[in-house]
Amino acid sequence: MEKKIYLDNAATTRTRPEVVEAMLPYFSEMFGNPSSIYEFAMQNKKAIDDARSIIAKAIGAETNEIYFTGSGTEADNWALIATAEAFENKGKHIITSKIEHHAVLHTCEYLQKKRGFEVTYIDVDEFGCVKLDQLEKAIRPDTILISIMFANNEIGTIQPIKEIGQIAKKHNIIFHTDAVQAFCQVDIDVNELGVDLLSASAHKVNGPKGIGFLYIRKGVRIGSFIHGGAQERGRRAGTENVPYIVGFGKAVEIAMANMKERTKKETELRDYLIKRILAEVPYTRLNGHRTKRLPNNANFSFQFIEGESLLIMLDMNNICASSGSACTSGSLDPSHVLLAIGLPHEIAHGSLRLTLNDEITYEDIDYTVEKIKEIVYKLRQMSPLYEDFIRSSAR
Amino acid sequence: MEKKIYLDNAATTRTRPEVVEAMLPYFSEMFGNPSSIYEFAMQNKKAIDDARSIIAKAIGAETNEIYFTGSGTEADNWALIATAEAFENKGKHIITSKIEHHAVLHTCEYLQKKRGFEVTYIDVDEFGCVKLDQLEKAIRPDTILISIMFANNEIGTIQPIKEIGQIAKKHNIIFHTDAVQAFCQVDIDVNELGVDLLSASAHKVNGPKGIGFLYIRKGVRIGSFIHGGAQERGRRAGTENVPYIVGFGKAVEIAMANMKERTKKETELRDYLIKRILAEVPYTRLNGHRTKRLPNNANFSFQFIEGESLLIMLDMNNICASSGSACTSGSLDPSHVLLAIGLPHEIAHGSLRLTLNDEITYEDIDYTVEKIKEIVYKLRQMSPLYEDFIRSSAR
Repeated sequence: MEKKIYLDNAATTRTRPEVVEAMLPYFSEMFGNPSSIYEFAMQNKKAIDDARSIIAKAIGAETNEIYFTGSGTEADNWALIATAEAFENKGKHIITSKIEHHAVLHTCEYLQKKRGFEVTYIDVDEFGCVKLDQLEKAIRPDTILISIMFANNEIGTIQPIKEIGQIAKKHNIIFHTDAVQAFCQVDIDVNELGVDLLSASAHKVNGPKGIGFLYIRKGVRIGSFIHGGAQERGRRAGTENVPYIVGFGKAVEIAMANMKERTKKETELRDYLIKRILAEVPYTRLNGHRTKRLPNNANFSFQFIEGESLLIMLDMNNICASSGSACTSGSLDPSHVLLAIGLPHEIAHGSLRLTLNDEITYEDIDYTVEKIKEIVYKLRQMSPLYEDFIRSSAR
Repeated sequence: MEKKIYLDNAATTRTRPEVVEAMLPYFSEMFGNPSSIYEFAMQNKKAIDDARSIIAKAIGAETNEIYFTGSGTEADNWALIATAEAFENKGKHIITSKIEHHAVLHTCEYLQKKRGFEVTYIDVDEFGCVKLDQLEKAIRPDTILISIMFANNEIGTIQPIKEIGQIAKKHNIIFHTDAVQAFCQVDIDVNELGVDLLSASAHKVNGPKGIGFLYIRKGVRIGSFIHGGAQERGRRAGTENVPYIVGFGKAVEIAMANMKERTKKETELRDYLIKRILAEVPYTRLNGHRTKRLPNNANFSFQFIEGESLLIMLDMNNICASSGSACTSGSLDPSHVLLAIGLPHEIAHGSLRLTLNDEITYEDIDYTVEKIKEIVYKLRQMSPLYEDFIRSSAR
């Protein structure tokens, strides 16, 4: 296989070999069901608790505030649906933002259509920051939940989580944050930030796909989302995925240990990439906030071109990239995030998300920038929009 | 490590080394997100579809009727909750049995308590077979779902699924079966059986823990349970667990290929075990049906003893066994299944489930029988109940 430059780490990441190694013994050797009472199986209980403790520490939580789920999406569904069910006697109003991941937006839609809830979708500014004044004004006596993502998956903008936490606390409203993209990328302390519920996923931090967790603050009395056996202290049924739980713990251990140097390196590379693209490709804009953004995220709009053609041509040059969220690719609608920050449809369509990891080098970035320049130039030569633009400019 | 005799295969099974091998490349090499549009990730789409096709074939379904989930429990929750939501305008009555797994029973409880549904719990006879006449009588104009497990996880009784399917069809009611224990153990053809929804899990068939599937018959219009991205044809959100899906496919491929000889061998061993235990341990009964039972299941009640002490002493002799469902161990309540077949509390407490796999030998069974004889004898010597019984018999 030729060398791939993998710049789609917001979609998913490579499972680290150390993580695979940590998981392996739990498939065919220590395979017991942790709920069983014989010693052979009970050792797996300890492995689970060790992983839980590593993850809790990473967000400043207590070990027994972490509940494993089958994905970040499940954690989001759990947070929203179980909170809705637990507090519907108090009220049926939820506040979220227009740029949430579909795991939150579609769950809100479900709560509206099927469960009689009302949802207010807060606007963001041109950089993708949630408008705090609008958020506070949206609060009503029957508001039971605020769900605002920690950092956006497309444009990387980091939200003012602490301020939102303070607003939620002042009004005695549960605060959930989807931290799938932020976890192990930015400092998170649930107590300092006033977060009550937090979702994250392993496969964004070099762990396996198919496992996530929900942090539930002690005292936040929400029920189960998946009903059945007594696993996860009676709150999430289903036989524990021991290998992935162990792997998730290992991935977080590594990611937290190298977070400072990793994110420093990524930030430098990101800024170099942004600087070159903006300087060398005309009619281009950076989407998202210039500094309040994930260390590994860059998102551009190139006027006059189709993002999909750009992706295909990058792929032909061994560069893996994305136009927005992986979960919605295949859709012809422009990104709801880019529309929310005010981009017109035709510019939103020409967007490109590049998300780094710590193995990416300056050489990789240089190669990628050169290829983007070439491809954008070619695509514009073929673009009737560009032709019109040039002709009208020349007049 | 000393040799373990693992007789708890209904709780979970060893992930086959061939399955692990099949999964390995998808962690650190072919790690792309199947929703991405570059070639590197799209190859994973094919791997998923291959697995889906193997699994569909195993139950006589079409490939696109299989939807991967995070567990058998999630599949049960999805089947019940989404059917309830889809048909609540038609009616809010559900029929199930008293011996279902908690994944079904607790979901029914949730639908009763939180969603205003009514649930009728059908009795079983002394062998654990659902009473068909009672089932048919329970049907009302507002009945929207019948959920009856294929085979019981504790006592192994196989239900008259075809007859239930006919009843459901006659009354135009959706029929769901939890086939977590039956999948790859007995012949299943969803069309012949008239099943509309079927749940199963990988870790009961030598696949990994943390993945299951729901079969949804084409034309059965139920919504999603986990909301978000467009994965699984828009019906189950969350990044696909590519390695486990591939592993699940591999496990089913192997299990279906050797099903005939495997279950024949297990049935012979099971019958040998049952015959010896009933002949050589006095005051013992077999729970479940003598012949309509899973090939690998044996379940006994030993009068005058506590099941938990028996398990601990078996563990000290390197035998892994269970008193009932792994998902409820730790609970002091007697099994709801054993109560439903009419056992008094004190006898239900002295029960033992032994579930085989194809690596178990006659030597293992002989050793296990000898140990059970020894331990039951010892425990009875210490039992005041047994002492009373002997004294009163001697009078």
